[in-house]
Amino acid sequence: MKKFAVILCGCGHLDGSEIYETVMTLLAIDRQGCQYTLFAPNEEQYHVMNHLTRQPTEEKRNMLVEAARIARGAILDLKDYHAENFDGLILPGGFGLAKNLMSYAVDGIHTKVMPDIEKTIQDTFTLHKPIGGLCIAPVLLAKVLGDITLTVGDDVNTIKDVETFGAHHINTKEGEVIADKKNMIFTTPCFMLNASVSDIADSANHLIETILENLV
Amino acid sequence: MKKFAVILCGCGHLDGSEIYETVMTLLAIDRQGCQYTLFAPNEEQYHVMNHLTRQPTEEKRNMLVEAARIARGAILDLKDYHAENFDGLILPGGFGLAKNLMSYAVDGIHTKVMPDIEKTIQDTFTLHKPIGGLCIAPVLLAKVLGDITLTVGDDVNTIKDVETFGAHHINTKEGEVIADKKNMIFTTPCFMLNASVSDIADSANHLIETILENLV
Repeated sequence: MKKFAVILCGCGHLDGSEIYETVMTLLAIDRQGCQYTLFAPNEEQYHVMNHLTRQPTEEKRNMLVEAARIARGAILDLKDYHAENFDGLILPGGFGLAKNLMSYAVDGIHTKVMPDIEKTIQDTFTLHKPIGGLCIAPVLLAKVLGDITLTVGDDVNTIKDVETFGAHHINTKEGEVIADKKNMIFTTPCFMLNASVSDIADSANHLIETILENLV
Repeated sequence: MKKFAVILCGCGHLDGSEIYETVMTLLAIDRQGCQYTLFAPNEEQYHVMNHLTRQPTEEKRNMLVEAARIARGAILDLKDYHAENFDGLILPGGFGLAKNLMSYAVDGIHTKVMPDIEKTIQDTFTLHKPIGGLCIAPVLLAKVLGDITLTVGDDVNTIKDVETFGAHHINTKEGEVIADKKNMIFTTPCFMLNASVSDIADSANHLIETILENLV
């Protein structure tokens, strides 16, 4: 039975992980007879957003504690991730990923990356294990890995940025997956496009299916 | 195109709405070519639980604001729900429902029900429109409506309580739906059993499918 690690960074697309992308990833993994283990950094979120007003608040919240809402408590500290224990790594998106795991939302092409997530991605890549990125997560993969082929949908500015990081971009529509088999990088646009909840389910399912086809 | 109202009360199973049950309900509605509108009370949650430690915290959070995380901002105040505008009403579960929309988690069979949710259920029932309840939501339906047939899975104590409220209980396994066609009440056990994320998807899909079959 194949085992996937899924990396979260909170609960809610404006300051943490996108909920539909996460839940549909877990469903796709479970439906295809595989197991998942969830991880998140045990650190404070960049900020807390009111998802009704779309305005920042004065609250403080912790990524691991909030991600535990999606995980129903079954989640580990990202520091406990060891690439050798898994067959693949999945990064759901959400604008929170670009605030918490990297500073792209604030710093654009001058983004920094959280050291623990950089190590997570590098360790997995070095072992030539597959990495799947949904939505904006491919921007993080481009920044860390550089010369890979991926998709962030069709947003011109984001495409320019991933190309600045050294990545090769392919435009996609809802549900499509780009497979960089040489580097074992698999990406799908999700809410980088104007997607429905069914589109997200299709994307996540297609992503896990494509990864499994490419696992020996 | 059939329109469903889906009622939430926060984000996370220990103090608000169960996330998988909510997302799978939205997926089932969308997959079956229908529309959904989300609602939650614009009121403070009963309390806030740390979902990692399963302990209460000192924080204050608002049900509508937190439910907006699952809704990606597209959610209305429960006071704006009008039964005549919808073809059906769906209540996902989560232990938070039994804390926020009623006081069952604290008061057991002496539970009180939030007046706005009581009106929501009564108005929908009076118009003979279908009401779907997942997980622990059937306890709320039993308390408000009394003489209906429903399921809460197979938990002996919860079954005794819904029978005390005047309801008739039928035991169920994962994915099963009990259809009380006379009263247009449709229920499915979800996390009242030891369910997987795929079981929740199956339950939600079966629930919406059964309701649509019984809509004229």
